[in-house]
Amino acid sequence: MSSAYETLVASFTKLYRYQHLASIVAWDQAAMMPSKGNDARGAAMAELAVLMHDTLTAPQLAPAFEAAKAESSDAIETASVREMRRQWQIANLLPASLVEAKSLAGTRCEHAWRTQRKANDWTGFLENWRPVVAAVRQEATLLAEATGLTRYDALVDRFEPGMTTAVIEPMFADLKRWLPPLIRDVVAKQRTEEVVRPTGPFPIAAQRALGLEVMKLLGFDFEGGRLDVSTHPFCGGVAEDVRITTRYSEDDFVQALMGVVHETGHARYEQRLPREWVHLPLGQARSMGIHESQSLSFEMQIGRSRPFLTLIAPLVRQHLGDQPAFEIENLVKIYTRVRPGFVRTESDELTYPMHIILRFEIERALIEGEIEPEDVPSLWDAKMHEYLGMDTKGNYRDGCLQDIHWTDGAFGYFPSYTLGAMYAAQYFAAIRARMPDLDGRIAAGDLAPVFAWLDEQIWSQASRWPTPELVERATGAPLTATHFERHLRSRYLNA
Amino acid sequence: MSSAYETLVASFTKLYRYQHLASIVAWDQAAMMPSKGNDARGAAMAELAVLMHDTLTAPQLAPAFEAAKAESSDAIETASVREMRRQWQIANLLPASLVEAKSLAGTRCEHAWRTQRKANDWTGFLENWRPVVAAVRQEATLLAEATGLTRYDALVDRFEPGMTTAVIEPMFADLKRWLPPLIRDVVAKQRTEEVVRPTGPFPIAAQRALGLEVMKLLGFDFEGGRLDVSTHPFCGGVAEDVRITTRYSEDDFVQALMGVVHETGHARYEQRLPREWVHLPLGQARSMGIHESQSLSFEMQIGRSRPFLTLIAPLVRQHLGDQPAFEIENLVKIYTRVRPGFVRTESDELTYPMHIILRFEIERALIEGEIEPEDVPSLWDAKMHEYLGMDTKGNYRDGCLQDIHWTDGAFGYFPSYTLGAMYAAQYFAAIRARMPDLDGRIAAGDLAPVFAWLDEQIWSQASRWPTPELVERATGAPLTATHFERHLRSRYLNA
Repeated sequence: MSSAYETLVASFTKLYRYQHLASIVAWDQAAMMPSKGNDARGAAMAELAVLMHDTLTAPQLAPAFEAAKAESSDAIETASVREMRRQWQIANLLPASLVEAKSLAGTRCEHAWRTQRKANDWTGFLENWRPVVAAVRQEATLLAEATGLTRYDALVDRFEPGMTTAVIEPMFADLKRWLPPLIRDVVAKQRTEEVVRPTGPFPIAAQRALGLEVMKLLGFDFEGGRLDVSTHPFCGGVAEDVRITTRYSEDDFVQALMGVVHETGHARYEQRLPREWVHLPLGQARSMGIHESQSLSFEMQIGRSRPFLTLIAPLVRQHLGDQPAFEIENLVKIYTRVRPGFVRTESDELTYPMHIILRFEIERALIEGEIEPEDVPSLWDAKMHEYLGMDTKGNYRDGCLQDIHWTDGAFGYFPSYTLGAMYAAQYFAAIRARMPDLDGRIAAGDLAPVFAWLDEQIWSQASRWPTPELVERATGAPLTATHFERHLRSRYLNA
Repeated sequence: MSSAYETLVASFTKLYRYQHLASIVAWDQAAMMPSKGNDARGAAMAELAVLMHDTLTAPQLAPAFEAAKAESSDAIETASVREMRRQWQIANLLPASLVEAKSLAGTRCEHAWRTQRKANDWTGFLENWRPVVAAVRQEATLLAEATGLTRYDALVDRFEPGMTTAVIEPMFADLKRWLPPLIRDVVAKQRTEEVVRPTGPFPIAAQRALGLEVMKLLGFDFEGGRLDVSTHPFCGGVAEDVRITTRYSEDDFVQALMGVVHETGHARYEQRLPREWVHLPLGQARSMGIHESQSLSFEMQIGRSRPFLTLIAPLVRQHLGDQPAFEIENLVKIYTRVRPGFVRTESDELTYPMHIILRFEIERALIEGEIEPEDVPSLWDAKMHEYLGMDTKGNYRDGCLQDIHWTDGAFGYFPSYTLGAMYAAQYFAAIRARMPDLDGRIAAGDLAPVFAWLDEQIWSQASRWPTPELVERATGAPLTATHFERHLRSRYLNA
């Protein structure tokens, strides 16, 4: 006897297999594909996007969801249906033609961006970008009409379920209040510190070997994943085969190494998602903010900490040779250096949230129709002046062309980064409360207790609970910026 | 107004996009994927195989093919419909359940084979292989019933349209008559020749750089393709993005280099298929035998020839360092050395057809039900004794476990290799008739006239003509083994 739940499971298992194909060819596009393959790839990915959309909008799903309500089910099955329903509802609001148009426009825009960014070619980019923005606005309008959310919130909700501008704006207003003065204080304090610059070149093969060793230390499973290179580092692939990327510069290993630590945080979440649910929405990562909370647990809570740098300093010397810059005091200074800059992905823990607030404000206005694509550069420049005191006029490459997210229409994603930083700070406050000797353990390479906590509280829970409940179960309290502020003041002012 | 032809084009374009996904993830599986990704990949590929099958068996195709008959159409459109109909008819004979069962069994068997071959584990392999053979026999039975062909011929026909055992067996009987004595004569002649062995190690990075340079010389378009590594070298990907692989050994560059030349022949055929038809069966490669005729044109007709070795000798010295073994006379001896061996892919031009005849005879008997999977090792051993005077008892690794083809059910493919060798010899007889100074041109690096001939006669023709007509148009005569025999006697006995 096939129950309604089994019908749903069959459809979502099929969807999961299509997502597998989509993830692998997307990784390939970013990490492997030669340029002339792009048009055919774009067409194939668009066809697959339509297929996934068709799978989620198949007529037999509506009666199955209806019948599933009436079936007796345990708590797990109830949560599983809740997560399937979420994806189904979103998909059923969007016509296939719009899904295809967005995918095609996004693929074209993203591919051209890879050269246009280097060429600082805003005009060329704008031409490809308008259709992307137009498609996303249509999408947002349809989602907003159905959910009662604003257009922007309807997009945010897909990445961070339950999160709205009404929650984010006050939290970001709070950050805007205390963070810029804190940045100024830290910059002033660091002005008198001497930092020894590491002297390159650092051969890419050596950097890669170092990165692989640090991934091993952080528990990455190499039988279920890879490390490669792409323009914009990311964690892709599928839970059973996680593909992370980084980008190398021979002059500087600092960014690439910490980038690998960051992506390894994403990767371990994926690699430890519960295998018995992996083919269902229930078994997939909770949200983009929770995903980012894992990468930032690895990068910010562990990676840039003095005990972790103490642990890996010998590996750095082993792979890159010894030099004065690799003394532990100096490594700590390098990895906690605060300096306002143009580029989000190269920015430090303190200025990063200001980059996010800038993007949040611009993309919200863009999606709500308060501004147009051509308004972005001047607005970007104005906010960079206000938040970080920097001028980006005419510098599109390091301004509004720097990120991949907007090129393929991932609007509403950016807030997740700073939500993730706040979640991570809150986890580690909870871990420290249970484990007062945490720093000593990390310095000794005993990372197992931290991973055990994350595994038990976050990784193994997948999408079992709504985000607020997941965080509250794990830390004993709802999300607050308090732990984040305390973490930053402690790390940067010893306060 | 949408004509029947346009309906067909829309369906086959969709199919082409699905094939794109299938090709890229298959390449990834062989060249990139870590081991734990295999189960999910197998499931995703099986789902995609079902989808492609569903696309080819969609109910609207039958009336569209019927209506297309009545439409006035030009010669190109007629050929296009002929090629679409061919794929459609084969697919409609096979139920989705069988397609999925074969794909799953094949993926599992192939993956396990990658370790079982190394471990010489015939018993372990046999367990995974039985379901593959069972599925292929079912497939062959269904195809045979519908076409009136024998079961084995029904499989051959998919790789080499129009080719049957009735044509192959007399041609192979001819080879069995003159080739073993020729092998004996050449081995006797070469016994007195001294060959200087190249002295390694040859670093893999240097071998790769040399391979890339030779690919460039042979016209490979790197904006539309890549070179990577896999256990079993192949040419995959899609026409717009061709992925070739090789495998390296630090001790020996000879095989890897000529393997790259071989795969580049496949690659150029794909890269030069006419772009206006690339999304339709009409625009795809004619057959596996014609495909192999391109790789063997590159490897046997060009690559192992004295003029080509003269051309690349300086590159070999540049990348691998100078040594006496790299003198041109010695390179010619290395690349025309004849010595019966166990492994097909490492065997020479003269003994290779005997490996093929052995496989043809075994797989034909297996598919026709004259033998069972467990009979293969002893039969293999008996034929190796008879054809090449070698003992393979207990050596499965270098015996019946050496090839990838049978692991995922590609029975009926092997004859294509030797048909390809005969096609290639016939092309070059035609080219030489028009270009008496061919050797001088090749030695001078002037390969353009050869590529122009192949482009005009073969590459640009795609599936425009049935195979026999394509070969006759190109060379002025139907396929015969005469040119092949003449080529071999000339190269190996100066006769």
